[in-house]
Amino acid sequence: MTLTDDLLAGDRRALARTITLVENDGADAHAALAGIYRHTGQAHILGITGSPGTGKSTLVNALAKAYRRRGFTVGIVAVDPTSPFTGGALLGDRVRMRDLSGDPGIFIRSMATRGSLGGLALATADVILALDAAGFQRVIVETVGVGQAEVDIASTAHSTVVVEAPGLGDEVQAIKAGVLEIADILVVNKADREGADKTVTALHMMLGMGMRYASHHGRTMAVDTHDHVEQTGWTPPIIKTVALRDTGVEELLEAVEKHRAHLLQGGEMQRREEDRAQATLIHILQAGMLRRLTSQVSSDQLHQLVAAVANRELDPYSAADRLLPTVLSAQ
Amino acid sequence: MTLTDDLLAGDRRALARTITLVENDGADAHAALAGIYRHTGQAHILGITGSPGTGKSTLVNALAKAYRRRGFTVGIVAVDPTSPFTGGALLGDRVRMRDLSGDPGIFIRSMATRGSLGGLALATADVILALDAAGFQRVIVETVGVGQAEVDIASTAHSTVVVEAPGLGDEVQAIKAGVLEIADILVVNKADREGADKTVTALHMMLGMGMRYASHHGRTMAVDTHDHVEQTGWTPPIIKTVALRDTGVEELLEAVEKHRAHLLQGGEMQRREEDRAQATLIHILQAGMLRRLTSQVSSDQLHQLVAAVANRELDPYSAADRLLPTVLSAQ
Repeated sequence: MTLTDDLLAGDRRALARTITLVENDGADAHAALAGIYRHTGQAHILGITGSPGTGKSTLVNALAKAYRRRGFTVGIVAVDPTSPFTGGALLGDRVRMRDLSGDPGIFIRSMATRGSLGGLALATADVILALDAAGFQRVIVETVGVGQAEVDIASTAHSTVVVEAPGLGDEVQAIKAGVLEIADILVVNKADREGADKTVTALHMMLGMGMRYASHHGRTMAVDTHDHVEQTGWTPPIIKTVALRDTGVEELLEAVEKHRAHLLQGGEMQRREEDRAQATLIHILQAGMLRRLTSQVSSDQLHQLVAAVANRELDPYSAADRLLPTVLSAQ
Repeated sequence: MTLTDDLLAGDRRALARTITLVENDGADAHAALAGIYRHTGQAHILGITGSPGTGKSTLVNALAKAYRRRGFTVGIVAVDPTSPFTGGALLGDRVRMRDLSGDPGIFIRSMATRGSLGGLALATADVILALDAAGFQRVIVETVGVGQAEVDIASTAHSTVVVEAPGLGDEVQAIKAGVLEIADILVVNKADREGADKTVTALHMMLGMGMRYASHHGRTMAVDTHDHVEQTGWTPPIIKTVALRDTGVEELLEAVEKHRAHLLQGGEMQRREEDRAQATLIHILQAGMLRRLTSQVSSDQLHQLVAAVANRELDPYSAADRLLPTVLSAQ
């Protein structure tokens, strides 16, 4: 039995070893991924994102348990790009260990890496493939943050769930603009807190506004929201949850499954799979270019060029032109 | 007079036109940047980041006004990667327009772009260069979010200011782990709110812990914080502000200037300039590679390959191998 055979048979140690391979990102990893790739595409991939303080980790755990009650196996990938030493990921994991450990139908992996120029997005995509090949039916990818990570998750997931909570401040309104672009499902967690209904109303208004603005103006956010709804026939539902007390979690699960059915019925699932494939392809090409840079250019040579740019003796575009032939030549 | 001459003379319209060039990112932009590059390196670049709800925009405005009172000119670059249609940036701008408009010593630019694979980071670096060349003495780069953007800002700025606010929830503790890595200065804004002292104490403890842990354990986050302090001789100060009432803003300005003096005295400024140069160089190479991909590979060809990957007929690593020769060949 090869590692791939063991993985495809659902062996947990084979899965863990494959993930380690993938994280180290060498030729072995590429071979392993090439071997398992045609066995993937079965899992439904959920992205769950939102600001700090919304209680995402608790919600992810509650949702995973809800899926287990229905007999689904669940992989969880917790991505925290801000935390090179897994400070954030560790906190989430402590909660998870208490709740979910010992269940063979659950597999949890935390990923935390210093800002790595797309490397984290690629590694996350590869870990999802490994979980998919190992037979996990639902894979939940949890990301902290409202920055680039949120945009990235939309190209990684089939269904993107954006979590809000009451009373996170004045800027929240503004952030929603970007969030409406990527959310398939909106959750107001901690819905037992003051201001929950206000948050729900604000979200409803923004969704509604999107549709009204459409008939009046040119290319604005609002129109885009409308176009999105019109193109896909899907209006993001807004669900109130109290993850700590397991309230609303079944409704969230139902919404995800409804969204999955919707994607499969229309041609939308194919389109999302192609978006995901294209994003992965570009990440692989970028990572390959960086590898070439470090393998073809000596660190002395690179440092000299970098110092010249830092000292204003050379502009960065000209420096890049000097590096390009070396980066492009040979394997 | 060329556009570059006008820009270097501090002409605002020339600056605006250069920035538009840069955002469109063609050969003209590269030529313009190559022309101005040796005139840059004078501005001190501040990165200001933090979670939503911390009042960053208000703080940036107050800090800009404090700098103006001392006679410094200030450029502001507001980066919002989540908001393709500048929903977030617009809100900040409305406040700014009221406060800062009509002052020729201030120039404000909002940047908001759909997830663009490093394109936004590169465009931001280029806009900073234009402001620097036009003679702005302090450039403040404001980013929303605690994801990748926060990590990126550290490679863009000389001094990174991380803004917190009281009562943003349980996850805040966890996030600090990553934040301590990049913060040169910590601000607790909205310091008139309940819990401000608790937030300050928590930050102090985490900073202090870093130094204590150092003598006990191996490679942990805490040790790294310690190493950082030891290597650079700089302990991030923690400053309480109420930006809306202009409280603590002068102290923040002093801390930034003290940090700048510290960077200039040691060799740290040179090291940061080299880090910035290297990040810019890599962003340029990555952007160049993407341009090659779209110019050398027909959209039909790309779509066929992407569809094959999406349909599991081809794995993404093999697809990348097929694209590579085309991407690498010719200009």
